[in-house]
Amino acid sequence: MSNRTGKLFVISASSGTGKTTLAQALLQNDKNLIQSISYTTRQPRPNEINGKDYFFVTKQQFFGMREKGEFLEWANVFGRYYGTSRTFVEMHQKLGKDVLLLIDVQGAKKVKKLMPGAIYIFLSPPSKEELRRRLEKRGTESKAEIARRLKVAQQELRELNAMYDGRYLCDYRIVNRDIRKATEIVKTIISAEHLS
Amino acid sequence: MSNRTGKLFVISASSGTGKTTLAQALLQNDKNLIQSISYTTRQPRPNEINGKDYFFVTKQQFFGMREKGEFLEWANVFGRYYGTSRTFVEMHQKLGKDVLLLIDVQGAKKVKKLMPGAIYIFLSPPSKEELRRRLEKRGTESKAEIARRLKVAQQELRELNAMYDGRYLCDYRIVNRDIRKATEIVKTIISAEHLS
Repeated sequence: MSNRTGKLFVISASSGTGKTTLAQALLQNDKNLIQSISYTTRQPRPNEINGKDYFFVTKQQFFGMREKGEFLEWANVFGRYYGTSRTFVEMHQKLGKDVLLLIDVQGAKKVKKLMPGAIYIFLSPPSKEELRRRLEKRGTESKAEIARRLKVAQQELRELNAMYDGRYLCDYRIVNRDIRKATEIVKTIISAEHLS
Repeated sequence: MSNRTGKLFVISASSGTGKTTLAQALLQNDKNLIQSISYTTRQPRPNEINGKDYFFVTKQQFFGMREKGEFLEWANVFGRYYGTSRTFVEMHQKLGKDVLLLIDVQGAKKVKKLMPGAIYIFLSPPSKEELRRRLEKRGTESKAEIARRLKVAQQELRELNAMYDGRYLCDYRIVNRDIRKATEIVKTIISAEHLS
């Protein structure tokens, strides 16, 4: 295990699919796996720590990094910038660590162009109705927000599907009916990907 | 393990994707897993054994079974009939066996209607180009046949994708770049599906 190069595992999922729970279980189980830490221009919240939750940078710093091609993907969310650092990922891979990147389908598409050798996993809800039920159960979103998220989820599925016709974006696609099952399977994917 | 009910695992894949190799590895590894034996009206080949390779029946017998709703799916291939027996699957499940059914996407769609609780796994080739390479390497098919199989494979992917928009046909979708990896992952799927 010591001399191996780490791999990048990109996990995409619609909101409400259970990706956070999955990531926590994976990270707890596998000490060789670390989660990618994003750069952001937004202000840290009181409980957030620079270099743990995010790397907090100024817009000027962010744009400078972007210009140097430092981001595997970046996004502007209502004027706040978020980016995935290529250096962070590659440095940890060289150290033999596997890196876990949780990201939406749009982001995964961008990363795929720059990191075609990464392993792409997509977690689906069992059905549109089940996704709605899960979002409603959380009780944290308004009706309008739930409708918006469902629409985004459908759109993501469609985009993912479109990409199956040519080269496939996703190496593994898992319908998450039971988070324990999904976790076991992703754990095996991570170890199986080190077989070659 | 002794008192559990077995599950039905339906594995679909385009030709050239490696499903036969995968099935052999799974069956060798897991003594609780048996492959579904189909009924057919075609003549047995010299090396084929009734009840092992197929259940060989007359057309009259086949049509009688079909009328009683005995087939989870059936197909007419140039006048020869093939069918998957519901009794075979359910009997072995009751005995605690997991049943493996290798079938094309069309067949899987039919089985899904009657057996919504089964676990559906789809194996994809890494890309259209790679599938073509694999089919050509086998050297058993003519150019026209390879072109036909590629067309069918694309069509199957499209159908599968269309079904992702609503309720999903597939619980697991795996791009088979390396048969050892795919085997490890399907082994885990089979054991993980017994968690609940």
